[in-house]
Amino acid sequence: MLQELFNPSVQHALDLAGIFVFAISGALLAVRKNFDVFGIAVLAEVTALGGGLFRDLVIGAVPPAAFTDLGYFLMPLVAAALVFFLHPEVERIQTGVNVFDAAGLGLFCVTGTVKAYEYGLGLTSSAVLGLATAVGGGVLRDVLANEVPSLLRWDRDLYAVPAIVGATIAVLCIRFDTLNAFTSGLAAITAFSLRLLAMRYHWRAPRAWNRRSATADDGQ
Amino acid sequence: MLQELFNPSVQHALDLAGIFVFAISGALLAVRKNFDVFGIAVLAEVTALGGGLFRDLVIGAVPPAAFTDLGYFLMPLVAAALVFFLHPEVERIQTGVNVFDAAGLGLFCVTGTVKAYEYGLGLTSSAVLGLATAVGGGVLRDVLANEVPSLLRWDRDLYAVPAIVGATIAVLCIRFDTLNAFTSGLAAITAFSLRLLAMRYHWRAPRAWNRRSATADDGQ
Amino acid sequence: MLQELFNPSVQHALDLAGIFVFAISGALLAVRKNFDVFGIAVLAEVTALGGGLFRDLVIGAVPPAAFTDLGYFLMPLVAAALVFFLHPEVERIQTGVNVFDAAGLGLFCVTGTVKAYEYGLGLTSSAVLGLATAVGGGVLRDVLANEVPSLLRWDRDLYAVPAIVGATIAVLCIRFDTLNAFTSGLAAITAFSLRLLAMRYHWRAPRAWNRRSATADDGQ
Repeated sequence: MLQELFNPSVQHALDLAGIFVFAISGALLAVRKNFDVFGIAVLAEVTALGGGLFRDLVIGAVPPAAFTDLGYFLMPLVAAALVFFLHPEVERIQTGVNVFDAAGLGLFCVTGTVKAYEYGLGLTSSAVLGLATAVGGGVLRDVLANEVPSLLRWDRDLYAVPAIVGATIAVLCIRFDTLNAFTSGLAAITAFSLRLLAMRYHWRAPRAWNRRSATADDGQ
Repeated sequence: MLQELFNPSVQHALDLAGIFVFAISGALLAVRKNFDVFGIAVLAEVTALGGGLFRDLVIGAVPPAAFTDLGYFLMPLVAAALVFFLHPEVERIQTGVNVFDAAGLGLFCVTGTVKAYEYGLGLTSSAVLGLATAVGGGVLRDVLANEVPSLLRWDRDLYAVPAIVGATIAVLCIRFDTLNAFTSGLAAITAFSLRLLAMRYHWRAPRAWNRRSATADDGQ
Repeated sequence: MLQELFNPSVQHALDLAGIFVFAISGALLAVRKNFDVFGIAVLAEVTALGGGLFRDLVIGAVPPAAFTDLGYFLMPLVAAALVFFLHPEVERIQTGVNVFDAAGLGLFCVTGTVKAYEYGLGLTSSAVLGLATAVGGGVLRDVLANEVPSLLRWDRDLYAVPAIVGATIAVLCIRFDTLNAFTSGLAAITAFSLRLLAMRYHWRAPRAWNRRSATADDGQ
């Protein structure tokens, strides 16, 4: 499948799938926060499209893709409706959702990096925007839900590091002129696998020196 | 009055009135949160201009209207000063403020939609940006005040739905080539009336299935 | 030093210094919130670059400087690493950090104003964007950390007012055609000194009328 990453229709289908699973995570948080049906839809949209929207504003790709592709807008509404009617069932398959979310993470960190580079940004900036594409929606979701972004918390399994690795591989492929469907697929799969391993083995990032033994009661 | 919606000076006066009432709501929240005079001014500005600023960044209308029209910037300062000195009186006339806020909502969901369409966005995207223009400032206000956006909460009277209806009517008028001062005024008045009715009869949006009987203690 | 404000390399060095001290304040908050090493880096980047990023999006300077200058990106990472390993020592020299932060505030309110004016904005809007450049990163830092922005709280020493004064002086110099290295340096030093005095004498802005005697328990 990924050999055809740059086939437009396959690429589009992958994008929609990534948007869908990100939207599910936003809608589930909205249900947990006791939001109404409209709040569920808003949080689904923001989670799914926020990262790409930020990237597009920064690289000057206006109007952003989120506002030019009807499918990008409708997909989160489908996810919101699904969660609205079936949320206990969706929560029960949380593991499955997490796997899809990891796939979205792997996909977006690579496509975000490539799009930023195509708009003329440098290699480091492209990787940073790839990372922002992958994790930005989740940060906006948590800010709107008035929670500390789970991205920043030490007591969550690694989320950003897999995306950083994926974006870095993509950037190295660009640097050494070997970016193609195969290598970009490889970058996405690496990020995806790292995230799965982080969830499986509860990998976490260290906190600041001298802080490890401190009680967590001043945290969240 | 609304027959002349597209007369520039009337349009401008309506815009300023909408900005003013939105700013009042921001300033009142700032007082309730015990912010200082500067915090009151910031929250008034953000509430009044945030939605339009977001729309302008998305459609590529830079610098945004908020930074090119001095009146847009000064009006929230007037509102902030008023609330600073007279806030018990302003709170006492909260109902009046709410009516004006509903008028601002109706106005901005239509003008936001039309502006987005003029900048080349599709019909659906234009309606979404009309909605964002109308409700975006309030969301930013609540995020800065570290509260769950009242837009998303189930225990608040319908706020977004009237704006969605207004934006949808505007978009339908565009679609069927019947957008003029009269029809856009009608769209704004419809949104305005729906919001008034929602406040009067405490209309609320449903929460997720199976959630209705849950206690609200897992909410905000 | 400031006589050469417009010598590009000196200007760049000052920018990097300002970014560095802002990043320190972000990293310190991240440690206090018990974030992991990645959260520390993110909060350092956001605090240091957020204000300038907002300004650049508003004036249409895309891609923003934060994404075109590698030094701007790397400096916060250095600050994050420093805080990660040495945060008790850094906290002990908090006063020193505050002095540098005040210097960053003074510098950015002036350079932000000048950049906005160079991009064609009006005098008032330029001053507003100078203020936003200076304080925007700190607001984003607090929003991401799920705290009420210290900028808005009444129980903090004046922070915005010195920046407003500095931006206003810069704008007056532009207006009367006397902006040069000396006068802009004077504007920055005025803002810097005011902030130092505000910290030394705990100057605070007033809260709303009739609110002064209220208990603060409805605050944060």
